Amino acid sequence: MENENTIRRLKTVEGHLRGVIRMVEEDAYCIDVIRQIQAIEAALNKVSSRILEDHLNSCVITAIQGNNKKERERVLKEITEVFEMSTKV
Amino acid sequence: MENENTIRRLKTVEGHLRGVIRMVEEDAYCIDVIRQIQAIEAALNKVSSRILEDHLNSCVITAIQGNNKKERERVLKEITEVFEMSTKV
Amino acid sequence: MENENTIRRLKTVEGHLRGVIRMVEEDAYCIDVIRQIQAIEAALNKVSSRILEDHLNSCVITAIQGNNKKERERVLKEITEVFEMSTKV
Amino acid sequence: MENENTIRRLKTVEGHLRGVIRMVEEDAYCIDVIRQIQAIEAALNKVSSRILEDHLNSCVITAIQGNNKKERERVLKEITEVFEMSTKV
Repeated sequence: MENENTIRRLKTVEGHLRGVIRMVEEDAYCIDVIRQIQAIEAALNKVSSRILEDHLNSCVITAIQGNNKKERERVLKEITEVFEMSTKV
Repeated sequence: MENENTIRRLKTVEGHLRGVIRMVEEDAYCIDVIRQIQAIEAALNKVSSRILEDHLNSCVITAIQGNNKKERERVLKEITEVFEMSTKV
Repeated sequence: MENENTIRRLKTVEGHLRGVIRMVEEDAYCIDVIRQIQAIEAALNKVSSRILEDHLNSCVITAIQGNNKKERERVLKEITEVFEMSTKV
Repeated sequence: MENENTIRRLKTVEGHLRGVIRMVEEDAYCIDVIRQIQAIEAALNKVSSRILEDHLNSCVITAIQGNNKKERERVLKEITEVFEMSTKV
């Protein structure tokens, strides 16, 4: 269910990206192209946030309530890592 | 020439994005999907930077060396705007 | 303990920021000032990541292992929110 | 004049940052601290944008209208560089 939603959103981004490629092929104004790329990035950020939300409410809860300490640490470490990376892209 | 380069880079990103859609369809691990989306965003940032570089070395030089003050102001304002937006996506 | 670490890091950032104010007062080159501001932001991002890491390994584990469903939801929602915001600043 | 404005804005950020240090000293909730740090980063982004705007309307115009090709290239390269960095912090 959540996957279908994510796929739908990513396919919308793919359509947007193809539109930008067409813009460049038709020699659109540089700044307009940059703005469209920024809009795509904003859309991708939203997709990532929704995926993280689903992840927290499924895998992370399971891992933290489980008995495997290693697994718990791994799952929490990953969240810090994607957070850290999100400030860099 | 610069356009061909941009198109090639954007098509690579499109291929990458299709790969991510396939990952989600095949139920890949959430964090791996987020990491791939972040990689796509990093690639898009590079494309934007290259487009801006070309733009500065063509349109912006022309506008600033030209006699149209309005045009000059417009071109410089756009650069501040995409810079400001880049800190938000 | 973690707090002392965070305070030490934030005070370093404060010193860096005061250095940038001094640069502007002494009429430093604009681009150098922008670069120093970007360095400060990178340092702040690192502080946020460390705080999030500590938070995940304390409050979040406690909330998820606890019996309060509302609290659990609140704690997970906050993480999505700071992640989402991190892609915008 | 622009400098005074920048100094005033940066001193406001400094006050904000000192407030965050106090929050940590008083053991404030982690997520609230992260949110305040993100607010500081948003404020710093605005300062950078204003500095860039002034820079474009002074040094960059002078360099592009001048006869020194090396200087022109240097000034334009710097703008691409701070733009590229802005997508990473």
